[in-house]
Amino acid sequence: MPLSVASVIILLAVLTPTIQGGKVLVFPHDGSHWVNMKVLVEGLYSRGHEVTVIRPTDSWYISEASPFYSAVTVDYAGGGNEDFFRLFVNEIIKIKRGKGSALTQFALDMELKNKFSELHQKVCELVAHMFENKELMKSIEDAKFDAVLTDPANGGGVMLAHYLGLPLVFNARWTVHGEAHFAISPSPLSYVPLPPSELTDKMTFFERVKNVIFYTMRMHLYKQIVGPHYTPLVDRYFGSDVDYFSLFQAADLWLMRVDFVFEFPRPTMPNIVYMGGFQCKPAKALPQHLEDFVQSSGEHGVIIMSLGTLIGDLPHDLADEIAAAFANLPQKVIWRYKGDRPTTLGDNTLLVDWMPQNDLLGHPKMKLFISHGGTNGIYEAIYHGIPIVGIPFVFDQADNLSRLRAKGVAMKLDVSELDRNIFQSAIQEVLNDPSYRMNMQRLSRLHRDQPMKPLDNALFWIEFVMRHKGAAHLRTESYRMPWYSYHSVDVMLFLSGLVLITVGVVVGLIRCLWSKLCLRTKRKRD
Amino acid sequence: MPLSVASVIILLAVLTPTIQGGKVLVFPHDGSHWVNMKVLVEGLYSRGHEVTVIRPTDSWYISEASPFYSAVTVDYAGGGNEDFFRLFVNEIIKIKRGKGSALTQFALDMELKNKFSELHQKVCELVAHMFENKELMKSIEDAKFDAVLTDPANGGGVMLAHYLGLPLVFNARWTVHGEAHFAISPSPLSYVPLPPSELTDKMTFFERVKNVIFYTMRMHLYKQIVGPHYTPLVDRYFGSDVDYFSLFQAADLWLMRVDFVFEFPRPTMPNIVYMGGFQCKPAKALPQHLEDFVQSSGEHGVIIMSLGTLIGDLPHDLADEIAAAFANLPQKVIWRYKGDRPTTLGDNTLLVDWMPQNDLLGHPKMKLFISHGGTNGIYEAIYHGIPIVGIPFVFDQADNLSRLRAKGVAMKLDVSELDRNIFQSAIQEVLNDPSYRMNMQRLSRLHRDQPMKPLDNALFWIEFVMRHKGAAHLRTESYRMPWYSYHSVDVMLFLSGLVLITVGVVVGLIRCLWSKLCLRTKRKRD
Repeated sequence: MPLSVASVIILLAVLTPTIQGGKVLVFPHDGSHWVNMKVLVEGLYSRGHEVTVIRPTDSWYISEASPFYSAVTVDYAGGGNEDFFRLFVNEIIKIKRGKGSALTQFALDMELKNKFSELHQKVCELVAHMFENKELMKSIEDAKFDAVLTDPANGGGVMLAHYLGLPLVFNARWTVHGEAHFAISPSPLSYVPLPPSELTDKMTFFERVKNVIFYTMRMHLYKQIVGPHYTPLVDRYFGSDVDYFSLFQAADLWLMRVDFVFEFPRPTMPNIVYMGGFQCKPAKALPQHLEDFVQSSGEHGVIIMSLGTLIGDLPHDLADEIAAAFANLPQKVIWRYKGDRPTTLGDNTLLVDWMPQNDLLGHPKMKLFISHGGTNGIYEAIYHGIPIVGIPFVFDQADNLSRLRAKGVAMKLDVSELDRNIFQSAIQEVLNDPSYRMNMQRLSRLHRDQPMKPLDNALFWIEFVMRHKGAAHLRTESYRMPWYSYHSVDVMLFLSGLVLITVGVVVGLIRCLWSKLCLRTKRKRD
Repeated sequence: MPLSVASVIILLAVLTPTIQGGKVLVFPHDGSHWVNMKVLVEGLYSRGHEVTVIRPTDSWYISEASPFYSAVTVDYAGGGNEDFFRLFVNEIIKIKRGKGSALTQFALDMELKNKFSELHQKVCELVAHMFENKELMKSIEDAKFDAVLTDPANGGGVMLAHYLGLPLVFNARWTVHGEAHFAISPSPLSYVPLPPSELTDKMTFFERVKNVIFYTMRMHLYKQIVGPHYTPLVDRYFGSDVDYFSLFQAADLWLMRVDFVFEFPRPTMPNIVYMGGFQCKPAKALPQHLEDFVQSSGEHGVIIMSLGTLIGDLPHDLADEIAAAFANLPQKVIWRYKGDRPTTLGDNTLLVDWMPQNDLLGHPKMKLFISHGGTNGIYEAIYHGIPIVGIPFVFDQADNLSRLRAKGVAMKLDVSELDRNIFQSAIQEVLNDPSYRMNMQRLSRLHRDQPMKPLDNALFWIEFVMRHKGAAHLRTESYRMPWYSYHSVDVMLFLSGLVLITVGVVVGLIRCLWSKLCLRTKRKRD
């Protein structure tokens, strides 16, 4: 696949050092994941490093021009899943609201699976075409990058780093095969819930059964994605003795978008660095019209609602129920909503196309955040200590909200049965029961009380890997062992065998002695 | 057991707040462990916290008067093991040098085991007497400490914290039951070597067998110590439903004297904070006579030798061999040695009673450290990047040196076969092969390249626990599960049962149908 002329020009510009500092090659994952990657890219730029980002021509989120990085735009269409995901979420809502059959749901699930499979296929095609383009690969090699930074939600960056022999840094919460910890850290399924199972770290027997079944299914799904797409690519370029999963596990550093105020405590590894909430920052002043609106709430304070970028509008009946519940509240409400104006909308509710969410969450009048349960919004709410009423739709949203509910800082609603009464009473419970706010403010205090800001810590460790050409001393190579050795099954069999043989020999000897003794006694008697 | 008058006076002084800041109750482990605890005590003092240290009257290392802490001296003799350990090490050397029989070795091992058992018995007696002294316990409760800081090499502080309901912080490398990680973190025996097995993280099959056997033996030893001493105490004061080991596992924070430049990478937990090398600091100027001696070495540089506080002198023959080897070297040697002057001592060797070890290790002329393999000296050598020739005698020394050897920064000698030739050639190899020094300097760079100094990090986290009354969000409570649940054995049995039943039913149905079919065919035929 040829590079476009523009991208070759950009590429040449990129590969000539222009900034003091190190050089980082970024292979991102498109969509909302890029929002997180951009935080690191901007951080690296601000520390004087030169960042090069690989993107497809039709990228969904990753723009070609940026003051913070240079793009290598590969003339390849593989990013544009935005429309599909928007449609998908709309369909999900329709089904949940009883306007779609179980069959439609199943068809949709299959379509989602196929879409993910297609996404990985396209990543593999992109990588293969990069590898085939000797001129491009040579220019990348000549640029002498210090490290590859990638989101392991796809495996492209992993393969690129292996090809180039460069240290590998992950900006991770999910890998191709599931929640990132499960790829590297021992994860006893008895108390480590597998997202998105919606379980907690304290499970009943049948919840533990569910967790094991979920894990088994997840591994099956993983094989279905890796088998047809990544394995042939690895075989082709690195030889059949290289295992795709091992390339993942060999990463030098896992920067995890995780903080234990949000996640449940679980085993970890020395080369995992936690940076959950790394995008959070103090609130800035609001635009005047918003400030005026917020101040007009008086002692009752303000509620904000945003369901993420994928959900701009809602079915009319649902929007009407939500608006009606808001209209009954003494609080002021700011609702990010792009649909038609609900007929039941009250005077206290302001519809907006976009809102400065972080600045609002950090406002002293802020009382409650109504959210779909996306991770970024959750971390902002934790940072500012604002309790949540959650309406999850897809992906990890329900699981995220289950975690928050287990920590006593959120209520989780089911969109299928949502009406004005349920919605209003949930809002009132979180507003009126002080425990929600107190618990969230405790999480906020814990989250903010770290020796370093999460972003600074993450940047420190990326630079560490660049300085030392990896982080081998923090990284176990136990993934090279076959499973039966890793779990000491062979040793156990050997030791059991020894015990059995010993017992056998002793029993044999006793029998032999006994029979001789009997024989002698018999002879004597005879 | 009554408190001495002096200690009651001190106690009263202690329990009246005098310093701004928090209040920490310290239950240390006597001997060289105190050297480490003192670093934290002084650090806490320097940050304005009030530290109270519990010590027995005959403490080996912990002095009653200190500018950094107030002592609660319990009128109880239990600390003085110094003479025993000195004699023990001397005996070990004699045996290794072929002047003691295998029988003597066995008797000595038993004596050591008994001594450790006695040590734990005395700690339990001390704790029981504290608990019985209602006046003392009330005054401690009234003093409203913020946390208990203890060395889990004995269980006294663990029980004190549970009794007082205070957050518990460990300054740990060893617990009563072995290396500290094994108490809290998943430790796959396939690649996590159990100290002091002298194994590495890359083991052959038979080394893995050895590791499993070592682990089993260690658990047996642990039960022998816990069973007769700690369990009755826990039963008596906390009830038989409280498990001694669970009290350990419930600690809020494990400050581990570990750094992965020295240890092998392995699973860890969110409430483990690594502070290996926390005592290290830049070298200060040497006293003039030492500086003159060091400078007189010219381009050859200096070697220092210290075998730790337990080993003041050596058998004459051994000392003579060592001195003779030194005499052959072009380097200058500073040897901390309290025995008679070896007859073979050369002009280039300076015997001293004590030396400023850290300042010498940090001197530009320093070439080599000859050490017994104690952890503190090793971290100082790593900090300053000085390679090691090690002569281990007891405890974890051989294991420590094995780790360093695996990292290519040390040679390990066996005292049983040590003579001038072996010693000299080991020294020359480490001096002449540049890889030792280069590897050690690489470890030094990695060790020093941390976002915070290890001591500052440790103090931050102690204060974190004091501020938040614990660190519950970093701490799993999975230790409350029975082992078969923790390892999902019950779930696996349940799922296997389900599969068996399903298979059984299906097979039964097929048989039934088959027999009916056969019957019908037969009837038709008939």
